[in-house]
Amino acid sequence: MGSQDRDRANLTALGHLTGSEPQLVDVAPAGEVVLGMTTHTILTSGAPLDWEAYEGGQRRAVLFGAVYEGIAADPEEAEAMIRRGEIQVRSTQELNCIGSVAGILTASMPVFVVRDETSGAVGFCNLYEGEDPHRLCYGSYNRGVADRLDWLRDVMAPVLSEAIHRRGPLPLKGLMARALRMGDELHSRNTAATMLLTTELMPSFLDMMGSSSSPSQLLEVIDFLRRNEYSFLRVGMAAAKATADSAHGVEGSSLVTAMAINSREFAIRVSGLGDTWFRGMHPELEGKFFDGFDQDDAEWIGGESCVTEVVGLGGFAQACAPTLQAYQGGTFEAMRRSNESMYAITVGEHPDFRIPVLEFRGTPVGIDIFAVVQSGITPVIDGGLAGKDGGQIGAGVLRPHLDVFELATKAYVERYGS
Amino acid sequence: MGSQDRDRANLTALGHLTGSEPQLVDVAPAGEVVLGMTTHTILTSGAPLDWEAYEGGQRRAVLFGAVYEGIAADPEEAEAMIRRGEIQVRSTQELNCIGSVAGILTASMPVFVVRDETSGAVGFCNLYEGEDPHRLCYGSYNRGVADRLDWLRDVMAPVLSEAIHRRGPLPLKGLMARALRMGDELHSRNTAATMLLTTELMPSFLDMMGSSSSPSQLLEVIDFLRRNEYSFLRVGMAAAKATADSAHGVEGSSLVTAMAINSREFAIRVSGLGDTWFRGMHPELEGKFFDGFDQDDAEWIGGESCVTEVVGLGGFAQACAPTLQAYQGGTFEAMRRSNESMYAITVGEHPDFRIPVLEFRGTPVGIDIFAVVQSGITPVIDGGLAGKDGGQIGAGVLRPHLDVFELATKAYVERYGS
Repeated sequence: MGSQDRDRANLTALGHLTGSEPQLVDVAPAGEVVLGMTTHTILTSGAPLDWEAYEGGQRRAVLFGAVYEGIAADPEEAEAMIRRGEIQVRSTQELNCIGSVAGILTASMPVFVVRDETSGAVGFCNLYEGEDPHRLCYGSYNRGVADRLDWLRDVMAPVLSEAIHRRGPLPLKGLMARALRMGDELHSRNTAATMLLTTELMPSFLDMMGSSSSPSQLLEVIDFLRRNEYSFLRVGMAAAKATADSAHGVEGSSLVTAMAINSREFAIRVSGLGDTWFRGMHPELEGKFFDGFDQDDAEWIGGESCVTEVVGLGGFAQACAPTLQAYQGGTFEAMRRSNESMYAITVGEHPDFRIPVLEFRGTPVGIDIFAVVQSGITPVIDGGLAGKDGGQIGAGVLRPHLDVFELATKAYVERYGS
Repeated sequence: MGSQDRDRANLTALGHLTGSEPQLVDVAPAGEVVLGMTTHTILTSGAPLDWEAYEGGQRRAVLFGAVYEGIAADPEEAEAMIRRGEIQVRSTQELNCIGSVAGILTASMPVFVVRDETSGAVGFCNLYEGEDPHRLCYGSYNRGVADRLDWLRDVMAPVLSEAIHRRGPLPLKGLMARALRMGDELHSRNTAATMLLTTELMPSFLDMMGSSSSPSQLLEVIDFLRRNEYSFLRVGMAAAKATADSAHGVEGSSLVTAMAINSREFAIRVSGLGDTWFRGMHPELEGKFFDGFDQDDAEWIGGESCVTEVVGLGGFAQACAPTLQAYQGGTFEAMRRSNESMYAITVGEHPDFRIPVLEFRGTPVGIDIFAVVQSGITPVIDGGLAGKDGGQIGAGVLRPHLDVFELATKAYVERYGS
């Protein structure tokens, strides 16, 4: 395949990445809407591993997920059931799902359902557990974690589902573009997007308020959305997953369509290289730790929110969100330079996602594995940092190594010729 | 008075400008809450003029105000009544009010009531008429304008008043600081602040929804707030007016406490120089005109929203709002440079209003007339542009001339010695 053919294939894949029209269509239990999900399936983040390879917080999170779902009495029983094949541990990615940190999804957990109206691709993501640093997705489990998950299932999800059904599918692209003009980059900052989402659902909420005999649950949900500025991230991730998947499988394309982390590896998939995961070292981490924590407390327990970077958000829109410097360290100038450096490894500029401080230039989008290898520049990924004892301990920027991109270009050349 | 005494006086005035704690306490008819307001009083923007001196759109707006209020059958009768002294035309500024563009306030019109909890100073501003370019404050009057003003009085104001009373006074400083981190500069861009205000009132709205037998008016108000991103400006102006007034009257201070425009002049007041208005030429205007309009269509019909610049917002926080470049022309770099140049003419940096792209430096605040004259740099003012035939025809940046600052420094030296 010549370079012109690759360029043409990449333009096709780019067209999917930028032409996607994601809509939030429902909030429903994963077991009801995710194809392949069963009561005895636990989904976790990253390229799939054999069970014995999962370690640390991600392994704990999977076991806790089984306990939370009520299919095992305790982590020991869950472990035994997994070994006997009575519980299946699978990768979120295989089932059109996307996971935050360890990304645990079980059948009863509600998920945002986002459909790309252009391609029909669907993405699922579970709900934000709230600001408490102890969350199942960070490998923590206790009574409080379980109570908060119950609340999401029993209160948050039914209210959101009814609100969405009352108004009909909610188009997300314009909302996300607007949030970028209001200081979000839609990975580590979702303050405006969460408010915009709440505003879009407000007419439904008001209807429900007028017709409800017990409005207290509705008020709890609205209060949760008001306090938890991160809430939109899960909607955005589901939208990004549907979008990224819509660009996957373009013959000859060298664009990245997935980046994902598990407890052992960072891995990517490439549009024209099928279902192969190219696996390598965990990224370098430049972060700002919360008080009382440092680098030694950090642990890799998974993460797929970097799907936002795949579609031109997060680190690829960092200059939209100067306030992030207070959260994850650094200066605005450094953020801007880092954002601008992403144009060197992408094949396009997003027609809808634009960066006001760069004179409304479109965000860099469509990461080309060849451009990464040739420039030596790897993607900038915003993200939360997990601690060894569970919980979030900071936030920062992740920089993958070149290894996975080199593996992918090698595979590309083997398949398509140089 | 020595330079040290002036510095000390300016620090006192600066302390009022930055220490103000404005709270939105009510929405009520001007005639009920504004001291000195009568059924036959029309308030208009800018330093006071004799009636015969008002011209063009501002003069028309005053006459239309009398017609709208129902105290004159038509502009001709209003004109005759003013000449006979049966209708008083006064400056908003004299009655603790603040006017957008021509700023017409009549007794039945609702106003936002904002009180500075630190000083007790109160500021009043009427409500945003909506996105239609034809508004009374832009010198336009027709059936649609009157209908929209009626709706503000009969629907918007009672709903907002009830919502505020249900929750109690709404502190504005934190909300405004947050809006600056979300892309507003709180003069020409108020998108985030309007959403934050709506969010703060939402629990009240939901209560009202649950207890109301006819929720349609409430839904209209929420819809108005959602569609009209500019709505917060009037709250912010009332807050800025209360704040600026709290810094007025500090013996020996050379800080500007008011900037105001009428159809003839730009004028300022100075903290240590009593009630004197220093009057001069209209500002230079660098703008972006809406399609079909140009510089020749522009007309000066008044304006006091530049009170936001007096308290360190608007042009003094322009770098917070890169998206404004699309609305009023220019580039982000130009906006940032212009914002930074304001540090040369101000005596302080705001402890709460901060600029993310300048590494969270406080906004420049406390305009010193001596610094303006010595540097030759005049304040940068964001603003809407009015057309000769009424209505808004564009948006841009206003730069006052040095004349008023020179007059003020001369008066200062005469009063206090050099």
